[in-house]
Amino acid sequence: MEMVKLVLVRHGQSTWNLENRFTGWTDVDLSEQGIREAHEAAAVLARDGYTFDLAFTSVLKRAIRTLWILLDDMDLMWIPVVRSWRLNERHYGALQGLNKKETADRYGLDQVQIWRRSYDTPPGALSADDSRHPSHDRRYADVPRDLLPATESLKTTLERVLPYWHETIVPELEKKRRVLICAHGNSLRALVKYLDGVSDEAITELNIPTGIPLVYELDDDLRAMAHYYLGDEEAIRAATASVASQLTAGPPAG
Amino acid sequence: MEMVKLVLVRHGQSTWNLENRFTGWTDVDLSEQGIREAHEAAAVLARDGYTFDLAFTSVLKRAIRTLWILLDDMDLMWIPVVRSWRLNERHYGALQGLNKKETADRYGLDQVQIWRRSYDTPPGALSADDSRHPSHDRRYADVPRDLLPATESLKTTLERVLPYWHETIVPELEKKRRVLICAHGNSLRALVKYLDGVSDEAITELNIPTGIPLVYELDDDLRAMAHYYLGDEEAIRAATASVASQLTAGPPAG
Repeated sequence: MEMVKLVLVRHGQSTWNLENRFTGWTDVDLSEQGIREAHEAAAVLARDGYTFDLAFTSVLKRAIRTLWILLDDMDLMWIPVVRSWRLNERHYGALQGLNKKETADRYGLDQVQIWRRSYDTPPGALSADDSRHPSHDRRYADVPRDLLPATESLKTTLERVLPYWHETIVPELEKKRRVLICAHGNSLRALVKYLDGVSDEAITELNIPTGIPLVYELDDDLRAMAHYYLGDEEAIRAATASVASQLTAGPPAG
Repeated sequence: MEMVKLVLVRHGQSTWNLENRFTGWTDVDLSEQGIREAHEAAAVLARDGYTFDLAFTSVLKRAIRTLWILLDDMDLMWIPVVRSWRLNERHYGALQGLNKKETADRYGLDQVQIWRRSYDTPPGALSADDSRHPSHDRRYADVPRDLLPATESLKTTLERVLPYWHETIVPELEKKRRVLICAHGNSLRALVKYLDGVSDEAITELNIPTGIPLVYELDDDLRAMAHYYLGDEEAIRAATASVASQLTAGPPAG
């Protein structure tokens, strides 16, 4: 049996993380800290001897730039990169662009906590003529109209991530290719939920820290045998903690 | 009839252009000037209203980084990018890594001019155990062994570029996709020779300047109806002239 290692990296802090706004499919860039986090992830991967045969990412620049920094620092700019909307962050519907604290003040912390942390309750949907609706963005022009979300829960995020996993990523892992996935908090939670069989309840409490490589060891049937973060323990703890609560404080990392 | 525009961009100056060495498949990076040239190419394309649906490039970082700068500056990081060894620079065989001036002193200017400018005379081939032979580089591990060059002339470069043009790039142009190709002096000369029906003799005298977008207008049968460089005329003239002779002087751009 030949073990396959899969590496997941959540993009570093974005400019909207800094502003504490619901980002979703808004195409904001990395902050300076986010850029640093990406370089640190590359250094940890290189130190531990990782390399890759191909990479997957979303069509959002905070994930793509994180990937570019990893590939550049690891001298892997030449490997194939495949972008897909199916690895995008969860679409935040009508909340997209709003400040998290202001939204909590207006709708109440309980309601916002439901939108943010419930497994299957999406925020209000965008109307088709809302400029934030993905049908107005030409990067989604080739996506069948009925697949484009106007809002998403973690559950519906998972339902559009998993077909991509099975149809596009799994065949590469079956060829024993070393795969890197650079994506987002919720598209990666969807994968983690599937790989580890996490319950609907438990997954809502699970936070993947930004810029800390998460390694899955998969057996021949691509079942997860083990997973672990790379880096020193303190950095992992600090990164995980900083994701925890974003409703009450200033600049968070999530 | 709906015209298709194809844009070719030769990567900017590399660190080995600066050192006046035969580069070929050596994976050297852009120089500071090369990075500036890429930003200027992006500015010209944006100014003239160009955008793209997908991009092709080689597996060499000086072309990939040029493309990354173009995509970043044009807010197109999300478009599909396809890398192929078939768009690499001409392989320079046993000359790869040597200083151009020293090579001219040793073999004579006439002989080096033949290697550099003849259409079909390649420099000496690398032996299979030479560390510069592409079989030792894992980025070519998936390329059939008998396709990997140990040296190339412009003619044999063209013979590996054109199948990629027909099989991979043409189908995208037939779908009316707006295609950007970021590649190298000789892989782009191969395309230009094919598109414009340039003779074997004339193509050896044709220099494509670095970092100046070259636009081809193609008809429904993908025949070239017109081509032109983007940018102000003086910049184009200066860039073309600086490519002309690299055997006698110091830092050139070619």
